[in-house]
Amino acid sequence: MSLKRVVASLKKHDNFLITAHTNLEGDALGAELGFFMLLKKLGKNAIIVNEDSVPYGYEFMPGLENIKRFNNKPNWKVDFDCFVALDCSDLRRTGEVYKLNTQHKHTINIDHHISNERFGDVNWVDAHTSSASEMVYHIYKEMNVRFDRDSALCLYVGMLTDTGSFRYSNTTSVTHKAAAELLKFGLNVPELYNHAYGNIPFQDAKLLIKILPGIRRQAQGKIIWFQVKQNILRNKKIYLDLTDQLLSFARLIRGVEVAVLFKENLGVKDEVRINFRSNGKVDVNAIAKAFGGGGHRTASGATVHGKIDVIRKRVLAKIKEVL
Amino acid sequence: MSLKRVVASLKKHDNFLITAHTNLEGDALGAELGFFMLLKKLGKNAIIVNEDSVPYGYEFMPGLENIKRFNNKPNWKVDFDCFVALDCSDLRRTGEVYKLNTQHKHTINIDHHISNERFGDVNWVDAHTSSASEMVYHIYKEMNVRFDRDSALCLYVGMLTDTGSFRYSNTTSVTHKAAAELLKFGLNVPELYNHAYGNIPFQDAKLLIKILPGIRRQAQGKIIWFQVKQNILRNKKIYLDLTDQLLSFARLIRGVEVAVLFKENLGVKDEVRINFRSNGKVDVNAIAKAFGGGGHRTASGATVHGKIDVIRKRVLAKIKEVL
Repeated sequence: MSLKRVVASLKKHDNFLITAHTNLEGDALGAELGFFMLLKKLGKNAIIVNEDSVPYGYEFMPGLENIKRFNNKPNWKVDFDCFVALDCSDLRRTGEVYKLNTQHKHTINIDHHISNERFGDVNWVDAHTSSASEMVYHIYKEMNVRFDRDSALCLYVGMLTDTGSFRYSNTTSVTHKAAAELLKFGLNVPELYNHAYGNIPFQDAKLLIKILPGIRRQAQGKIIWFQVKQNILRNKKIYLDLTDQLLSFARLIRGVEVAVLFKENLGVKDEVRINFRSNGKVDVNAIAKAFGGGGHRTASGATVHGKIDVIRKRVLAKIKEVL
Repeated sequence: MSLKRVVASLKKHDNFLITAHTNLEGDALGAELGFFMLLKKLGKNAIIVNEDSVPYGYEFMPGLENIKRFNNKPNWKVDFDCFVALDCSDLRRTGEVYKLNTQHKHTINIDHHISNERFGDVNWVDAHTSSASEMVYHIYKEMNVRFDRDSALCLYVGMLTDTGSFRYSNTTSVTHKAAAELLKFGLNVPELYNHAYGNIPFQDAKLLIKILPGIRRQAQGKIIWFQVKQNILRNKKIYLDLTDQLLSFARLIRGVEVAVLFKENLGVKDEVRINFRSNGKVDVNAIAKAFGGGGHRTASGATVHGKIDVIRKRVLAKIKEVL
């Protein structure tokens, strides 16, 4: 069992470099911090290195002072004998951080994405787990390490955000069991929810309100889609997770099977980011793969080069094929 | 302990009339059905009687065929030796159903509202429990009655909806523990979430999108409000809980303390329904009371006679006083 191999690796090493994927969100952050706290409790040295900064609104998370922002300069020197990638399906998901591992130190790959490329020396990949944070929770349990308020908070927030507050298909009985244990450490549920979700700047809310009327449906309402062109985003600093907001809303509409967002990438000519959400029946991982992307069965994405209107038609036609 | 007294009462009686409050929602329905199934497993006779019909979108719940709609006619005859009110803070919350208990049969009152009036012969009131459904879950546990898929589904849906998918302050470690147990019976999490929340007719979504641009803020963004006039609602059958959708959205905006919706009541001249939500600091129960209404500290409402623009100014001024 790979969890046991992870535990063996943790015991064997002393200096850890922990990282997660770019575009950090609640789960990547929660898993990193929870993992860091675990190593500290085990008496190990550890450092967290991320390509991207802590996302807007997550300033409340404990332990952020232990995160170092990756800085691709010659004077960078980090000593470690074990490289840990959390929530990354492949090493490029870490941004440039994986390049710090020039000497190919022992690499632990802990991830819950089905598309994981098994790039580690130890690979613990469990696509049936809600989140990387839930996997880190299981390491605590396996090693009999006690949680405290901070570690409980980090892992709870990771599970909360990756399950959309315990509503996505990745939510299992085990997820709830873990949440039940973590909540005992005096966590404030509505406060944490509000930290994670209730931090939308008014200007972002107005932008969302401006995009919403573009909602369209096809295939008797089984497909709902939005399109966001560069001009509406230009010169705007957006903190809101527009993709998640729009697709979450679309999924609540009666009869919808697949929700899709087509977004022109800023600063790049003719590059479109496509995000998919499925309400369960359609495997959107397969659809994303057909366009060079990937993800989960119910949430996936792809980046495609070309004109947005052309791409949109191709993608919608592909979805209709599998409906 | 009141739970034990409930159990004793269940053992002592054979014919039960179960009811819950008017404006049935997920918890009232889940608790009723879960309780009915419990009694059947115990070999008892039972009937569910409700004043109101099953709400839109809840047709998926198992056991609905056991619910009788209250019909206040002389030929109504229901035999029972025990009357059970679930999720009702007082008997009038049952609508007219409590009038069926003309002979004052033994009454069990199971509720999680702090304002409960202890109207039963046995009163089990626990304001620290997420939902009436979670209380029914505890009766199964106390009596060692096994769940099956149907009963697990009903109780899970009740907990899910009353906690806003495990995000409100009533969500506890015990709630998650119960959810962990119930999910083992093969429940489909996203499907149930979608049944409960994701059933918005496309036309209602379009109406919501039409109202959203009217979002306004005052007091440095501490107040967010919407106004809905009769003309936008006229001739529309709306299934969506507009109030909840608009105010839930408003509460997610950074810095907001109070969200308010002003809505002209349909078919009545100069009558305005006001709904308040607080993010915790402001007691909107007190504000609603000042306008002849009431509710909870974080969610309340009032109905006021007059012109909507005049009322809105008075109400916003009142909120600013307490900010």
